[in-house]
Amino acid sequence: MSYRKKGWKPRIAITMGDPRGIGPEVVAKAFARVHLSKVCTPLVLGDRHILDRAIKSMRLGLEIVEVGEQSQEVWPGVLPVFSLSNLPARRLPEEIPPEESSRASFAYVERAAKMALDGKVEAIVTAPVSKEAIHGAGIPFQGHTEYLAEISGTKKFVMMLVGKRLKVALVTTHIPLGAVPKYLQEEKILSVIEVTSQGLLDYFQKSAPSIAVAALNPHAGEGGLFGKEERIISQAVQRVREKGISVSGPWPADSLFPRAQRGEFDVVVCMYHDQGLIPLKLLHFDTAVNVTLGLPFIRTSVDHGVAYDIAGRGVASSRSLEEAIRLAARMARTKEKNKSLSGRRFTLLDSKHLTG
Amino acid sequence: MSYRKKGWKPRIAITMGDPRGIGPEVVAKAFARVHLSKVCTPLVLGDRHILDRAIKSMRLGLEIVEVGEQSQEVWPGVLPVFSLSNLPARRLPEEIPPEESSRASFAYVERAAKMALDGKVEAIVTAPVSKEAIHGAGIPFQGHTEYLAEISGTKKFVMMLVGKRLKVALVTTHIPLGAVPKYLQEEKILSVIEVTSQGLLDYFQKSAPSIAVAALNPHAGEGGLFGKEERIISQAVQRVREKGISVSGPWPADSLFPRAQRGEFDVVVCMYHDQGLIPLKLLHFDTAVNVTLGLPFIRTSVDHGVAYDIAGRGVASSRSLEEAIRLAARMARTKEKNKSLSGRRFTLLDSKHLTG
Repeated sequence: MSYRKKGWKPRIAITMGDPRGIGPEVVAKAFARVHLSKVCTPLVLGDRHILDRAIKSMRLGLEIVEVGEQSQEVWPGVLPVFSLSNLPARRLPEEIPPEESSRASFAYVERAAKMALDGKVEAIVTAPVSKEAIHGAGIPFQGHTEYLAEISGTKKFVMMLVGKRLKVALVTTHIPLGAVPKYLQEEKILSVIEVTSQGLLDYFQKSAPSIAVAALNPHAGEGGLFGKEERIISQAVQRVREKGISVSGPWPADSLFPRAQRGEFDVVVCMYHDQGLIPLKLLHFDTAVNVTLGLPFIRTSVDHGVAYDIAGRGVASSRSLEEAIRLAARMARTKEKNKSLSGRRFTLLDSKHLTG
Repeated sequence: MSYRKKGWKPRIAITMGDPRGIGPEVVAKAFARVHLSKVCTPLVLGDRHILDRAIKSMRLGLEIVEVGEQSQEVWPGVLPVFSLSNLPARRLPEEIPPEESSRASFAYVERAAKMALDGKVEAIVTAPVSKEAIHGAGIPFQGHTEYLAEISGTKKFVMMLVGKRLKVALVTTHIPLGAVPKYLQEEKILSVIEVTSQGLLDYFQKSAPSIAVAALNPHAGEGGLFGKEERIISQAVQRVREKGISVSGPWPADSLFPRAQRGEFDVVVCMYHDQGLIPLKLLHFDTAVNVTLGLPFIRTSVDHGVAYDIAGRGVASSRSLEEAIRLAARMARTKEKNKSLSGRRFTLLDSKHLTG
């Protein structure tokens, strides 16, 4: 399937998320609001009854079409569902049996991962699940990212958040703030910078991405006066730079984001969760997309949780999911383009060699 | 001097900052760009020769008028200087003898503090000095804030950063990030919230300020899953709330700042430097003002450093200093107004009591 083949569209598996959360309604809303079939061939892995309930309760006027693993062209007004569970679609989401619901939400992700590994889809877009609930149902599950890394045998992966004006990649994620310093090993920082750089090259058409690395301590430690970790970060930056990657830092975090926002850098590598998420959400409150880099397939995700407190009321915004699907489609097209370009380049070189 | 007395203007002592840094030029620029005498009776504590050099090198066309401790009305085009040092105004700032320069920069602050304590000025606005340089000149000095607290016998003070759309108050400031958790004692957090609340009441005309407190850990620790400090913060919040102050939290930091920016809260109490400074600088890059709350007088400051690397070139922006002077003047007027109102209230009550 070549990029130049006209009308090529990536196949995208969208997991419905926890049936008791806002996943089903944001999935349905996204299909009602956006003609997703313009940019991709989408397929929802979820539950037919639950989605049907969401569509009816919000009066979205979408038609559910049950499909199998083989994606097929869809048209506006249609929600293509590969139904992997058979849950009772009670009036209120909280009436769905928790354990069944959690097992089902895991099954969608599991199947999506297998489809991606088998090359049946180009990308996975995930709606939110509850780690705790899945764990509670007896399935060892640390989160989408960790699960997808494990099942694909990926050792080095990076959580990157993408907004229109700012991208942030995280060295550490869901750990206590006080534990961050001890996680900042040179090898870890180095690997995050490299995976991020490669990810931008593969999926974002950045021929030579410019990467800024944030310091850990205030004022970047002010020359060691408050904090020594900048030395470790600095060594990692130096080593990556020697490989020809355009990277700088560690920069004092507070004055770095205004520069990144103005376009001076393509991405900011952050040392901890809130260092990246505070500026990202301030600039892109409900349109940021969570991307996992380093996997053998494309994976994007909404940047919100299950939000049980508002589930079923139809008030949740589907913007983050819409952006996540659009971004996955764009990333897939870029990858395809790069593949096709490198293929052509190879052919040219090859024929030159033969005739030269 | 009553608020209702027409034309009342606060007297403001502006310290020139380190003669080798960008202080002198931003002070001169501020007087050239803004008619400060409209909002206050300003007085620069500094060095006549150094300021003269800055004015001439930037061709600002300002006239220096030497004054004493007694402030007097000034007019546009005039820079009123209380000259406290006699430094050689060499061509380049770095040619000024470092030790003399550092001692002088301390002398300006020292005199400003005395004037404020003696009621000779209503506010102090400080241009940047170098802590290290002053220390190097044999003067024990940890920074403006700490010095002003010490000399005024203030135990509880708070660093607050003020921008048009966001105010942040910091529980900890210039310490390594890894050390933050151990500084978060309940009493400390409680005192920062209280001082902040009182500061808004005294100087910002907030009849009942709405205060949000940020969590330390990502997702506010997700119920103790990553980090326990939220329990301590929560206890402090609870205790302050019982005193009738409108305070909430701890909130996950990443989703809190968009809400504060939209006006839901008057101030965000932050656990560490970058937690507050990252969103503040993203929204208000060179217009944020640093305010010290809790002192017996008003003190504001620029939010940048000495910037030796660009000093003397005339490129430094004076916007932060202009905002710092304007804000100090506004704070002084509000304080005066409150004094006058409470005086009137007292008189009314009093007379009622007498006649009742």
